Amino acid sequence: MVKETGGRLLGDVLLDRSSDVPLHRQIYLQIRTHVLNGQLPGGARLSSTRTLTAELGVSRITIVNAFEELCAEGFLRSRAGDGTYVGEEWRSQFAAEPAPVRPVLSARASATTSARGSELTSHAPASWNPDDAESFVPSQVGVDAFPVRTWKRLLARHGERRDVDMLGYGDPFGHRPLREAIADYLNDARGIGATADQVVICSGAQQAFNALALLMVDSGDEVWMEDPGHIAARLAFLANGCTVRGIPIDDDGADLAAGAAVHKSGRLMFITPSRQHPLGVTMSLARRMEWIKWANENNSWIIEDDCDSELRYRGPLMPTLFGLDRSQHVIHVGTFSKIMFPSLRIGYAVLPTDLVEPFKAAVQVIGRTPSTLLQAVATDFIRDGHLHTHIRRTRRLYLARQDALLAALRDQLHPFIKAELVDAGMHVIGWLPENIDDQLLAAQLADRCIYTYALGDYYLKGGGRPALLIGFAATAEERLPQAVSHMVRALHHIGHRW
Amino acid sequence: MVKETGGRLLGDVLLDRSSDVPLHRQIYLQIRTHVLNGQLPGGARLSSTRTLTAELGVSRITIVNAFEELCAEGFLRSRAGDGTYVGEEWRSQFAAEPAPVRPVLSARASATTSARGSELTSHAPASWNPDDAESFVPSQVGVDAFPVRTWKRLLARHGERRDVDMLGYGDPFGHRPLREAIADYLNDARGIGATADQVVICSGAQQAFNALALLMVDSGDEVWMEDPGHIAARLAFLANGCTVRGIPIDDDGADLAAGAAVHKSGRLMFITPSRQHPLGVTMSLARRMEWIKWANENNSWIIEDDCDSELRYRGPLMPTLFGLDRSQHVIHVGTFSKIMFPSLRIGYAVLPTDLVEPFKAAVQVIGRTPSTLLQAVATDFIRDGHLHTHIRRTRRLYLARQDALLAALRDQLHPFIKAELVDAGMHVIGWLPENIDDQLLAAQLADRCIYTYALGDYYLKGGGRPALLIGFAATAEERLPQAVSHMVRALHHIGHRW
Repeated sequence: MVKETGGRLLGDVLLDRSSDVPLHRQIYLQIRTHVLNGQLPGGARLSSTRTLTAELGVSRITIVNAFEELCAEGFLRSRAGDGTYVGEEWRSQFAAEPAPVRPVLSARASATTSARGSELTSHAPASWNPDDAESFVPSQVGVDAFPVRTWKRLLARHGERRDVDMLGYGDPFGHRPLREAIADYLNDARGIGATADQVVICSGAQQAFNALALLMVDSGDEVWMEDPGHIAARLAFLANGCTVRGIPIDDDGADLAAGAAVHKSGRLMFITPSRQHPLGVTMSLARRMEWIKWANENNSWIIEDDCDSELRYRGPLMPTLFGLDRSQHVIHVGTFSKIMFPSLRIGYAVLPTDLVEPFKAAVQVIGRTPSTLLQAVATDFIRDGHLHTHIRRTRRLYLARQDALLAALRDQLHPFIKAELVDAGMHVIGWLPENIDDQLLAAQLADRCIYTYALGDYYLKGGGRPALLIGFAATAEERLPQAVSHMVRALHHIGHRW
Repeated sequence: MVKETGGRLLGDVLLDRSSDVPLHRQIYLQIRTHVLNGQLPGGARLSSTRTLTAELGVSRITIVNAFEELCAEGFLRSRAGDGTYVGEEWRSQFAAEPAPVRPVLSARASATTSARGSELTSHAPASWNPDDAESFVPSQVGVDAFPVRTWKRLLARHGERRDVDMLGYGDPFGHRPLREAIADYLNDARGIGATADQVVICSGAQQAFNALALLMVDSGDEVWMEDPGHIAARLAFLANGCTVRGIPIDDDGADLAAGAAVHKSGRLMFITPSRQHPLGVTMSLARRMEWIKWANENNSWIIEDDCDSELRYRGPLMPTLFGLDRSQHVIHVGTFSKIMFPSLRIGYAVLPTDLVEPFKAAVQVIGRTPSTLLQAVATDFIRDGHLHTHIRRTRRLYLARQDALLAALRDQLHPFIKAELVDAGMHVIGWLPENIDDQLLAAQLADRCIYTYALGDYYLKGGGRPALLIGFAATAEERLPQAVSHMVRALHHIGHRW
């Protein structure tokens, strides 16, 4: 930028005439940057608009428009009869050497974020890649089976509505017809015995866990969780400042007596009776009654995460704690992520009557209910019978995929990995030799684009037999042998032999 | 239920043959209920399936199916050669008198929820009613202007995709093309100078506030907020255990010097420079620079809620704090709730580079990014130029509605309510006589279906001149005189004269 007696010529303003950004806007943005970084110091006089018109090869109105905006925002000052100047306040403010633009300040960031924030960041999930469809990630749904034509037709049914009901903030309890459809569905499929008034819609189960934590625990309160247990729910409780206590698992599910023997009375319990996450045990009826009795006597809340109850391949679908409980201490949480698709972002909580209003308020504080359009489409998907059909189809498909995975593991990985048929869900537990560090192994496999979860990550303090959670839902039957052979090759690479 | 020597006849099992629920399921559900409520006590013997077939008028296989499920779940026991019994464990458990079904337990609920939960519940938003479109609720968008045909066409473009990218959990940073579109949009419209890598998509601005609170403050930390200020953001900080300190507002916006004179150094500041929420002041450039300097010197974070910046009717659109700041202490938060529609549930945060990963992790903990389908449709809406057109159209429409509201208030309510043109946003401030309690008045009006917000609710500790926030965005110009006359009638009813 050459300083001329007639004022700055703005020679380093570069205009891109092929850009969608109007020329006056380009001039505005660049002058602003020059003022901000000190290239155009406070008090500097600019050339006349006439001179700049010739210099930049633009019309006078373009320059005038840019200058007017810069004056309005205080970057430039226009003095009658004396042309245009950079505002005086820019003289002192940034007169020093130009600062480095957007330096990386990670040390600062970690020093000034919260303790709980730093803790959570260390648990950040692995990078996501849409091409990982063939991985063994346990939460990966088989989206190839989803009836998208039906879905699109239902979308079209509601997509053109312009009412406040559809486009406004929406019912804070969730779209009423969906709440009714869920109550009917749960009463039919799970005998849960709840009315639509007890159902509140959330943006997925994770939002429900956060809202319940907000509602029920203060910083330092104890939450009991299965150990090994649900990682995302644990992070939500830790983020809410709770102390998480582990409850061991036996063949009947979460072992209440063992937990109660060592911990103080917890205010909130989080359990997965329908399929213990991640081990896969179904909680026995007697054990269910124990938990309910205990919650009633100790005035504690139980969150029943009804994990994968629809994806059951064998054994009875047991009654829910919510349905069994007569003392109103159970909150039942479900999601459509598994039986429709994850990106739908619709989950729900079924609550004791007197918790419905407080829970709604908590959901509003942390982020409101999901898109009404998607709630309306999900309603029709349930009401028109598509959900029922899709669940039955998915169950057959996933069972076949599980069989194919188990066969491939037996053929190619025995005895390094030993896995058995699971009754429900989307992953098997692949048990490893005792001397293997499962967390290290999962990381080594991930480096080679083989994605599994280490069972060790699910334990509060590590320990437990080493194993990998190997998902089967997202990979077609006929591709599973090859996917497993990729795993074999990776394991050989890492140095394992069997 | 009559006790027969041959076993219970189940005479009070009532079958609904017109129901979609299969008969075996109806029998299952009713027997289960009878066991649970003690009507069928532990050890009771049921009649033979043959007898029950005749008694209930159903096929034998129907009874067998119901019994098998009840046996599998432990409600019934089958003894070889001796028929079917209610499980012994039900004898003691619920042998007492039948408990009242689902009693209301509000006293219990309030005694066992968290302190912060009880606090939040007292701030629960007013009940929602889709017929309130004609109300003066300040956050109500004029959805009648939204181009729903275009929207439906864009929905159809993506509605049939079955890839993991579209149906799976989605990119935890948000849909990449949307992040690029937002970066381009903000660079063009607001000169913000950020890349797509600095943009993270959230389920609305409220989720962003919660994620930032999680990331930046621990329980007891101080957050500075404008007073009066953003209610929903304040609730989010309170829910996260923070102490909120008020910063007064003057003609240049949030008065940093006045705040800094009385409070300790806050870790996090929440301000609304583009249009002070709720008073409507635009922060001056000099004040903006003060805030940035202060954050840099005190190593604090500033959340810049870029509230309604697109809905500006007069005065300059000032540069963002994010764009002005070279020290990377500003997080810029925006939403599409106002310029597309609220139920879309898409907002975003633009972050200093080193905060992007931690912020993503925090969003994952509290509830993940919104539906990928809606993110993809929003991307096209921006890229294809519809957003630009819609904003221009909305601005004209809202300005006309504001003019009509102000005229009607002048004609019908002067001098009881005095309001002036606002530069930006969707509500005017209707100043009341000094002796009026605005919170009481807003409640009295709401009882008469006239919805406004009391300015007093926006103050941390009450005080301030009494006023009502009166929204104009959702009501057609020609209907505003009548809507105001309803307000006049309600005020007369309440007993006010002028």
